[in-house]
Amino acid sequence: MMSDHRIPRTESAYTYPLLIKHLLQSPLVHHPQQEIVYRDQLRYTYRDLHERVCRLANALLSSGVKAGDTVAVMDWDSHRYLECFFAVPMIGAVLHTVNVKLSAEQILYTIDHAEDNVLLVHRDFVPIIEQIKGRIDMVDHYILLNDGAAALDSSIPFTAEYESWLADASPYAEFPDFDENTRATTFYTTGTTGLPKGVYFSHRQLVLHTMGVLAALGTPQHQGRLHQGDVYMPITPMFHVHAWGLPYVATALGVKQVYPGRYAPEVLLDLIDREQVTFSHCVPTILHMLLKSSHVDQVDLSHWKVIIGGSAMSRSLCLEAMQRGIDLFTGYGMSETCPILSLAHLDAEMLELEDDAQAEIRCKTGRTMPLVDVRVVDEQMQEVPRDGVSTGEIVVRAPWLTQGYLKDTRNSEQLWQGGYLHTGDVATRDTKNYLKITDRTKDVIKSGGEWISSLELEDIFSHHPAVAEVAVIAQPDEKWGERPLALVVLKPDLETPPGKKELLALLHEYTDTGVISKQVVLTRFKFVDSIDKTSVGKTDKRSLREKHL
Amino acid sequence: MMSDHRIPRTESAYTYPLLIKHLLQSPLVHHPQQEIVYRDQLRYTYRDLHERVCRLANALLSSGVKAGDTVAVMDWDSHRYLECFFAVPMIGAVLHTVNVKLSAEQILYTIDHAEDNVLLVHRDFVPIIEQIKGRIDMVDHYILLNDGAAALDSSIPFTAEYESWLADASPYAEFPDFDENTRATTFYTTGTTGLPKGVYFSHRQLVLHTMGVLAALGTPQHQGRLHQGDVYMPITPMFHVHAWGLPYVATALGVKQVYPGRYAPEVLLDLIDREQVTFSHCVPTILHMLLKSSHVDQVDLSHWKVIIGGSAMSRSLCLEAMQRGIDLFTGYGMSETCPILSLAHLDAEMLELEDDAQAEIRCKTGRTMPLVDVRVVDEQMQEVPRDGVSTGEIVVRAPWLTQGYLKDTRNSEQLWQGGYLHTGDVATRDTKNYLKITDRTKDVIKSGGEWISSLELEDIFSHHPAVAEVAVIAQPDEKWGERPLALVVLKPDLETPPGKKELLALLHEYTDTGVISKQVVLTRFKFVDSIDKTSVGKTDKRSLREKHL
Repeated sequence: MMSDHRIPRTESAYTYPLLIKHLLQSPLVHHPQQEIVYRDQLRYTYRDLHERVCRLANALLSSGVKAGDTVAVMDWDSHRYLECFFAVPMIGAVLHTVNVKLSAEQILYTIDHAEDNVLLVHRDFVPIIEQIKGRIDMVDHYILLNDGAAALDSSIPFTAEYESWLADASPYAEFPDFDENTRATTFYTTGTTGLPKGVYFSHRQLVLHTMGVLAALGTPQHQGRLHQGDVYMPITPMFHVHAWGLPYVATALGVKQVYPGRYAPEVLLDLIDREQVTFSHCVPTILHMLLKSSHVDQVDLSHWKVIIGGSAMSRSLCLEAMQRGIDLFTGYGMSETCPILSLAHLDAEMLELEDDAQAEIRCKTGRTMPLVDVRVVDEQMQEVPRDGVSTGEIVVRAPWLTQGYLKDTRNSEQLWQGGYLHTGDVATRDTKNYLKITDRTKDVIKSGGEWISSLELEDIFSHHPAVAEVAVIAQPDEKWGERPLALVVLKPDLETPPGKKELLALLHEYTDTGVISKQVVLTRFKFVDSIDKTSVGKTDKRSLREKHL
Repeated sequence: MMSDHRIPRTESAYTYPLLIKHLLQSPLVHHPQQEIVYRDQLRYTYRDLHERVCRLANALLSSGVKAGDTVAVMDWDSHRYLECFFAVPMIGAVLHTVNVKLSAEQILYTIDHAEDNVLLVHRDFVPIIEQIKGRIDMVDHYILLNDGAAALDSSIPFTAEYESWLADASPYAEFPDFDENTRATTFYTTGTTGLPKGVYFSHRQLVLHTMGVLAALGTPQHQGRLHQGDVYMPITPMFHVHAWGLPYVATALGVKQVYPGRYAPEVLLDLIDREQVTFSHCVPTILHMLLKSSHVDQVDLSHWKVIIGGSAMSRSLCLEAMQRGIDLFTGYGMSETCPILSLAHLDAEMLELEDDAQAEIRCKTGRTMPLVDVRVVDEQMQEVPRDGVSTGEIVVRAPWLTQGYLKDTRNSEQLWQGGYLHTGDVATRDTKNYLKITDRTKDVIKSGGEWISSLELEDIFSHHPAVAEVAVIAQPDEKWGERPLALVVLKPDLETPPGKKELLALLHEYTDTGVISKQVVLTRFKFVDSIDKTSVGKTDKRSLREKHL
């Protein structure tokens, strides 16, 4: 594929490892002139993409990157990121997509923990690197993604600027065959324990996830949700679970792709309009932001198909989107699952339903993709009845689940039990086998795409001298998905009982040092007389939710 | 998956081998009540299919079948065959789909060569087995597929009749995990050398082929060719490359399936009408037969999508089908390739073309599936220009190609050269990358789905005392695809020159003993003065075709 005129020989002629390089084959043959667009700054073809992937691979090799090394990227959604999605794994290295929303301390932790050798960093994130540069362990080369701007004044000893780095490299490359189980990507989830946890995926897993998504999105009832006539634009960041794997899917299919850079509502809406974007994915918070934008009335969204994921979508948001003609449907998955496990496809008869009834289905997590084995089980791993009422934990097997957390045996062992990955999500399954998530086993709150541990917050508040008892639950929120609600029982007979502001201030020392998500500042407080308990004396969150939400 | 209440444990919790059993997961969860129909004799649900797969697996295990054993089937297209497609590989055994169109001698050869341990045989084929029974090597158990008929009078010592065999077996089974590279199926191609050649496919290959077809048929331009609302009926036999793999695809998707038994035009048309069949595949000969049937005017074919393959489709046949509203498109592949490599998808602008121009595209072999690497190369393995004129051999890499021919090192080495499988097909590729097959490297003629070697026929005729020289070329034929045309130079000054009948009679001793395909009786003759030669003295078939076709 790499060079049309040289045929690589393999040890066993007939073996065909599932490698990321193979996803580029069909589009280069059938759609070499198809476009890839970056904001209003650049448009080029798949043929150019291929050439730049070759250049990037050669530039990395020239810098001493070897198979097994790790190359980290800090960038907004861009064609450069797409180039890294291919070039880095194709030379046998590991792509670390750095979560730029973490605190500087957390970013330092992930760079060191992943043992990054090369760091490609957009000029917007250079201040973060300057903050931590003396403490970075292993990075040999810093590459500046200057994004067409004027020269940058920085103390970081950049090896090169991305564009000149590529210009100096050869546009020809042959990519070798190797073991399909070679690690291709890694990234960190904002977990509940303070420290981010690394997940990782192999070439085989990413190729199979791509094939699974193509199959699932192409063959629902009556019409494919994704086809070669679509125009794709991600609106979940490329650092987050490879933008849900869709850049690989879009490339394998050879569709036009649009990368929006930093997300700003006007830019996104303008690109949807100008580039005729038909297929995206985002979290409810972003969709909400778009629909509230003053620009929204100027854009026809009636050809726009959107996968919603990351947190539960409210029915009112779904209805609002449907009224604009958006074909909205939910996907289910998590960082640990590559991520997609199921999609809310509608049967023919469901499309005949009133909007209200349709919205309810579109908000569910839908039907499992081919090869995905999802079960809803009780604590003895017995499946609970499929009655839409009985709840259990979602456990899963699929060909594209992380083997565990990077260098973290203890958490990996908790993730995989009884041959299944334990999602920590509690759900019901109805007679039509649609999943509906009702709760979380680990009591986490998902706010603006980030996890907040209610147990951690409870721990913080319980150290205040005036607090007798506290319980934190997730309060549904139109904008953020969820925000923490702290139910606080004060000690009796206090002379100067603390106010809500004082309690909130407690959190700042934790957010300032990057130990917990900044989203905790959204915490609301309610002073209550007592906290309900279960029969064995544990906090009864179910009862608290019923009473206080 | 097998039993909802027991979770199998695996050695490595996170490994997920690509096994055929996983193709049953999604449909059983999401479409358990979907129908599977056998002629007008039976209809049952996917849940019943699953139960019968479990029963069949248990019946096989009780008969002593072990992992690695081979189970052979001689049946028409049926729900029973579908049950075998799953149950036999799912216990780790190999399914041998016997080509019932071969001669008895050839069938004996394949049964012995594949080392079949169990033979399931439809009552219609019992006479063949009676003819060869004393000479079958290894078969321990014969199972009668009596197909609901009255008791059969036979000398074969049947262990059981299929339905009672299943009835006596347990409906519960747990299917183990094992190496995805385990052989799942084998069958024999009617090659050009007299002896059939066995090809074989692993679980991994069949699962990946299924995912590839789902992706390719689901995501063409503007509308999926295959989706969950379709009704599937095969019209290429299940013994032939697993009916092109489509029964696995249809099952994984959970669509309604219709199995027609023995192919008779009225039965097929009646089933299309009555069961609202929307998706099939067949060779041009069968399509021709259907369109010429006296029943065809009574059936609305305007919702019928058909993949055509096996041999080249004529434009007139394509136009005739299009005029009936059939959505006809060609697939390309061969027994050695599992089989599908490419499909003739039309771009949006192509659908706007006049019928004539559309037909030309629909007759090409189309665009490669995801992960398929097709090249058209010269003898030095250099790609020829993509100009629609330059010809070369089609060579291919894909995750689902046979590793070689069973127990046949010499032919396997010829098949795989330079890391690519050599198809023996000669083709051009145009600027839009559509393949068009123009010739064959091995000079074979494909008649009614069977290969006839022109070299072999030439050899036979050249032994006749009156023949000075002979060349056999393929003559395009509306009904058979191709039939042999023998160009014969008689010796000079013969007293009684032989007639065409006498030459034809020569072939009978070969067909009677099953050495070559019975299709050779279609050979036509033309007496000519000389045979054109190339500059190096070889028969110039290209020139002969130009002159005599």
